[in-house]
Amino acid sequence: MLKNKSLISIADLEDDDINAIFEKADYISGHMDEVLRTSPMKSKILATLFYEPSTRTRLSFEASMERLGGSVISMADSKTSSFAKGETLADTIRIVESYSDIIVIRHPLEGASLLASKFSSKPIINAGDGSGEHPTQTLIDLYTIRNETGGIDDREITIVGDLKYGRTVHSLILALSRYNVKINLVSPPSLALPNYVYNGIKDKLNIETYNNLDDVISGTDVLYVTRIQKERFVDKNEYYKLIGSYKITLNEVNKMKNGSIIMHPLPRVDEIDPAVDYTKNAKYFRQAANGIPVRMSLISIILGD
Amino acid sequence: MLKNKSLISIADLEDDDINAIFEKADYISGHMDEVLRTSPMKSKILATLFYEPSTRTRLSFEASMERLGGSVISMADSKTSSFAKGETLADTIRIVESYSDIIVIRHPLEGASLLASKFSSKPIINAGDGSGEHPTQTLIDLYTIRNETGGIDDREITIVGDLKYGRTVHSLILALSRYNVKINLVSPPSLALPNYVYNGIKDKLNIETYNNLDDVISGTDVLYVTRIQKERFVDKNEYYKLIGSYKITLNEVNKMKNGSIIMHPLPRVDEIDPAVDYTKNAKYFRQAANGIPVRMSLISIILGD
Amino acid sequence: MLKNKSLISIADLEDDDINAIFEKADYISGHMDEVLRTSPMKSKILATLFYEPSTRTRLSFEASMERLGGSVISMADSKTSSFAKGETLADTIRIVESYSDIIVIRHPLEGASLLASKFSSKPIINAGDGSGEHPTQTLIDLYTIRNETGGIDDREITIVGDLKYGRTVHSLILALSRYNVKINLVSPPSLALPNYVYNGIKDKLNIETYNNLDDVISGTDVLYVTRIQKERFVDKNEYYKLIGSYKITLNEVNKMKNGSIIMHPLPRVDEIDPAVDYTKNAKYFRQAANGIPVRMSLISIILGD
Repeated sequence: MLKNKSLISIADLEDDDINAIFEKADYISGHMDEVLRTSPMKSKILATLFYEPSTRTRLSFEASMERLGGSVISMADSKTSSFAKGETLADTIRIVESYSDIIVIRHPLEGASLLASKFSSKPIINAGDGSGEHPTQTLIDLYTIRNETGGIDDREITIVGDLKYGRTVHSLILALSRYNVKINLVSPPSLALPNYVYNGIKDKLNIETYNNLDDVISGTDVLYVTRIQKERFVDKNEYYKLIGSYKITLNEVNKMKNGSIIMHPLPRVDEIDPAVDYTKNAKYFRQAANGIPVRMSLISIILGD
Repeated sequence: MLKNKSLISIADLEDDDINAIFEKADYISGHMDEVLRTSPMKSKILATLFYEPSTRTRLSFEASMERLGGSVISMADSKTSSFAKGETLADTIRIVESYSDIIVIRHPLEGASLLASKFSSKPIINAGDGSGEHPTQTLIDLYTIRNETGGIDDREITIVGDLKYGRTVHSLILALSRYNVKINLVSPPSLALPNYVYNGIKDKLNIETYNNLDDVISGTDVLYVTRIQKERFVDKNEYYKLIGSYKITLNEVNKMKNGSIIMHPLPRVDEIDPAVDYTKNAKYFRQAANGIPVRMSLISIILGD
Repeated sequence: MLKNKSLISIADLEDDDINAIFEKADYISGHMDEVLRTSPMKSKILATLFYEPSTRTRLSFEASMERLGGSVISMADSKTSSFAKGETLADTIRIVESYSDIIVIRHPLEGASLLASKFSSKPIINAGDGSGEHPTQTLIDLYTIRNETGGIDDREITIVGDLKYGRTVHSLILALSRYNVKINLVSPPSLALPNYVYNGIKDKLNIETYNNLDDVISGTDVLYVTRIQKERFVDKNEYYKLIGSYKITLNEVNKMKNGSIIMHPLPRVDEIDPAVDYTKNAKYFRQAANGIPVRMSLISIILGD
């Protein structure tokens, strides 16, 4: 279904598409030597067009394409690019599509990736557009929950931190509404989930709001921690107070049940104590590593192998 | 003849060289699957040294090398490069030639590419040096005229816009003096072709000057539109008045004859109405796409396959 | 011994490791066609993480990996990278190790590469960390002395210029203490070798200090010239006086004995007259070119082939 299609929003995907991506990612992980040897994407080119820097996401896509035996051309930073000079995104895309087989785009403006896909005969993958979506991050989040807890249905997922500004969290909550899960939202009132997100999913999801992590931590299967952005706070004391009350330390890990996991989209700053990294609950580096099989799978399915 | 040679100026090429490049580009376009499968440039390295940014040109060269199965090393921006710190270009080239098989250089100073070629035992391709030449752009222009109108000889080619500052236009006019063509130059007097260019080709070319596009549009086979750079005008009203009188819209397209084409070296800003993109005359995106087979051909011939 | 190990300091290497690297580098140089054809590092990925720009070093590592048939992902400049935003180096490394097989890191802070190696399950190569080490540069220096003069033992090596600030020189002197060599240090008193370096090797090395190059030039086998950094001098006249008295011209070359060589880690600015480039003593471009076989050898040995 996804062959030769663009991926702009997680809503573009049928449940079957998501399952196919995850199954192929499992296969790739289990047969990496065979994939590396056969170079299924040999002489195909992936273009990365990053109108705002995101080294992590760019390198993850580039490594995924290279693991498949393909090549990469890269605009890592529009500030040093001639593409900035008055040219429309439509024109840039129509040129870059003639150089490549698939285009990964990151742009500060919401809707830019969708616009790009309208002008491209080659598939576009949205790698984040402003406050819009970043669908491969959501796929990686779902894949991590599935693989590290044995499934997604019937899980109790607690999302803590900044629920207001976090694009990653909004996309994840929308995607989780496809599954039978319980969601606990834990945030200070000033960083609560916006109504327009809540209203979109309240009928489909078993979702509740808490101020205090202690109310839900013992029943949690997946603790999804998000970055609270210091730059949002005029009063920095406010930030430090807040961070203090939501920070995950060994104390919180000790309250979690057997087999439960901790996730974070990274980068983290102060939200998780480094001591937590060495517990078996900590899965945020595994989550980042899952970017490779999930993106390899997605590229393979879109380009066909 | 071109094997292991540098390409600094279009004047470096014999007519036979140009024909050989075009014939190999045709072959590559027609046998792309075979080329991709056989990787004729496997384990060869192309270095891009861009002392001023030109994302389009850089990505086009890099994609061309990767389509041939080769690899790329890249200095995309000298501002973040240690190569800026007082080292001579000669020294930089003598180092980079030991890392690579062919070097593509873009530099703000005229003559820089020629200088580089004097110090390199590896072939240099000039990808633009100041107000000097950009010979692969000229090859792509000629190739597009040849392929989209069935030949170059006997064509009536109208060049409109900024004939004074446009490096691309000067190179193209010089190259066209090899063929039996009629050239119409259409520009406001303030942006007319400089005398030093005109005097160099006036005896070899059937060339005439007009102020008004309407005088020549109906007989035109190739309408070559160039960017008028807003930053050249102290009085911005002057710019908008000018742009208005030379802008290509559906109105102009309707006056053009059957089989005629519109070209532009891109990026365009205000010179061509986006509605024109959907006419069959519009060949500027095809022209950009031709960068791949022409550059693949050139690299193949220079490096030998 | 080096397989799967990090290389942070030249002191990490046993004498046998150094010999093995040099022997494999010889083999690679002598069988380059075979290496290029067999692609021993096919589908392996080298990541370059450059927290300060060093185009020469980065391109040399990238070309080395590509000559081995491997691929590259690259953060060329941390200023345009999201990795700058408050994330610890430990976290960045734990993410990048999941994208790659080997990581080359350059960082402005001494000790950064060692720290990175503590958090990485993949091998780290230190490509310079502040005033710390740059071990592959030292390997290339030793390899050049060995190959261009037929060995390292029994050589008289004169190091001239800035002995105070030059990281490259400190590492080289430490490494030379493994061999039976005579070292002459020639510098103005203000740029003499720091005591902490001198004291570390004075018992192991036959080392003497001179103010005047003429005292030692006729007995020298290897003249190692270093860059005197203009920015170190408040009084620029002081700089020009100094540079004048230490500059290598044909006059100095004529005093050198048969088979002696001149080296420089490059970039050079005013220290060596360009006329010297054409003498058979000049080996500094060869030295830069040796970066490829030495780094190819090192990567091959670490990753195993």
